[in-house]
Amino acid sequence: MKKKVLIGIDLGGTSIKIGIVNAEYEIIARTSIRTNAGRTYEEVIADMGQAALALLAEHDFSIQDCIGAGVGSPGTIDSQNGVVLYSNNIRWDNVPAAAELRKYLPVPVFMDNDANCAALGEVTKGAAAGYRNAAFLTLGTGIGGGIVIDGTIFGGGHPGGVELGHILNGSEKRKCTCGRYDCLETYASATALIQDAKKMARQHPESVLWELCGKNPERMDAKMPFDAAEAGDVCGRALIENYIAHLADGIVDIVNIFRPDIVVLGGGVCAQGKKLTEPLNRYLKENCFGASVAHVPEVVIAKNGNQAGIIGAASLVSRQSIPPKLQMVPPLD
Amino acid sequence: MKKKVLIGIDLGGTSIKIGIVNAEYEIIARTSIRTNAGRTYEEVIADMGQAALALLAEHDFSIQDCIGAGVGSPGTIDSQNGVVLYSNNIRWDNVPAAAELRKYLPVPVFMDNDANCAALGEVTKGAAAGYRNAAFLTLGTGIGGGIVIDGTIFGGGHPGGVELGHILNGSEKRKCTCGRYDCLETYASATALIQDAKKMARQHPESVLWELCGKNPERMDAKMPFDAAEAGDVCGRALIENYIAHLADGIVDIVNIFRPDIVVLGGGVCAQGKKLTEPLNRYLKENCFGASVAHVPEVVIAKNGNQAGIIGAASLVSRQSIPPKLQMVPPLD
Repeated sequence: MKKKVLIGIDLGGTSIKIGIVNAEYEIIARTSIRTNAGRTYEEVIADMGQAALALLAEHDFSIQDCIGAGVGSPGTIDSQNGVVLYSNNIRWDNVPAAAELRKYLPVPVFMDNDANCAALGEVTKGAAAGYRNAAFLTLGTGIGGGIVIDGTIFGGGHPGGVELGHILNGSEKRKCTCGRYDCLETYASATALIQDAKKMARQHPESVLWELCGKNPERMDAKMPFDAAEAGDVCGRALIENYIAHLADGIVDIVNIFRPDIVVLGGGVCAQGKKLTEPLNRYLKENCFGASVAHVPEVVIAKNGNQAGIIGAASLVSRQSIPPKLQMVPPLD
Repeated sequence: MKKKVLIGIDLGGTSIKIGIVNAEYEIIARTSIRTNAGRTYEEVIADMGQAALALLAEHDFSIQDCIGAGVGSPGTIDSQNGVVLYSNNIRWDNVPAAAELRKYLPVPVFMDNDANCAALGEVTKGAAAGYRNAAFLTLGTGIGGGIVIDGTIFGGGHPGGVELGHILNGSEKRKCTCGRYDCLETYASATALIQDAKKMARQHPESVLWELCGKNPERMDAKMPFDAAEAGDVCGRALIENYIAHLADGIVDIVNIFRPDIVVLGGGVCAQGKKLTEPLNRYLKENCFGASVAHVPEVVIAKNGNQAGIIGAASLVSRQSIPPKLQMVPPLD
């Protein structure tokens, strides 16, 4: 008998990545199409569905071999109903994406926020495999967050919860994209680190940091301040100490609230590995509430890397409790 | 047939309040005994169990009329196993309180943190009645927090979660009792407000605040700064504005994480009612993540008042999912 597969779809503002995933959550085939955001959602989802069907056919699978499909999307998602309530990246408001995709893929279709998917993916197959409760933070343009409790995504009471990048962190009156000041992501995202490093480099043309960016702060990336610190640069060290202090405090907040088994960090900054996790773990042991008696989770680096989107989305199919309303939808055929 | 009842027990450092609660969650009889903390837990729980049995007998109930008992306790509680992991107030470490109490009350015994109980009590019968998802903050000596999701207490992955008073808030390097600096409760507890008001009064003997405390800052309470502000006192207004700003930011964090239907405030400061909730609700509408598209909960004042401990504890029996391990314990008889 032919083995069953899952479809994982990573919907982004620029591209849509589609993968066929086997029961071991390995990606056995993948494709990518352009989102061309700005079109109607019906057009975008028609492309998505047809590309998924083509990928299946190309690898000798039919839709009958497919248990279900998961879609990870940026923005605020109503996962119970498979609706994109709001997404700035793909410019969608109130789009019934799961129902629309089922017109092409007549299988159970699940949908969640991309950071939630990545969190679930790390529990299903990744750095948190074997754990039931995990907190996930992605340190990228902003800070995305996902919480897995008892093996399923924790979504809070209403869509728009678990915005872990949008908890108060510093006091420099940094304006956040969400409209508030001083959210965690204004201090601890990759973007924040790069901004701080640009400023520091401009002020210190004598620094290693200034050399590393080729004397052009516009070329700064999130790795340079870590490299400068490693080289003993005072500016680099100050930047990294400050960055890690803010991130550490954000993680302590998340531990004090969710008390997960493990904390997983994803996103570009995580290439730094132990330079990031060692000081974070030291800080957590001393600063989490009731650290001497309560469980203090270890902070580790995500493992799914650039497969996180597809694996995370595919893992929705088997790991998430089936949203009751979608369960009731009869198969379209 | 005789109506069934519940027992609610509010375990505190000074006293243990015990109530018989009917199916409408009304307290139909109550008593209070001294905790005499410092004794062995067996002694304290023997008193607790015997007092509950005596209260039942006095009101013509037998233990057979009792569906179960709930205990709310300060500290870090392992609610799955009914164990007080750590409680500074009653000086207990790793006490199997639920199992011990079952020696006296051979009914299902549930146990949780007192703030979690109060949160559940407000959902069962109180300010959040009819809602499935609620966040509860008690503004007292510290800040206790409880989260109800889908009608049951949300506990996070391990005991010691949902410490909503221990998320980062300000930047004045205020040392928190938990060991960290600048937790929400160092700015927004009743204690914090009183400390700030004492300092302000000492600096401003020309203020209404100074008069209100009888020119003796040691007499300051949490009501005086509100009264001073109401009377137009510059010092009072500054204090209340600052207090509400910190509290508002803490609540926005909680909304961004849990996105509840409603936010309930308890504790002494809440006697201020609309003076507190009106500015908080205005701030939430503007500052919650995705406020224009996502659900922004209303902030309301708790209703159970000084009955919160007993009602909350009793509500554990019917509202909390039955902890699997306790479920397996055979009745002792």
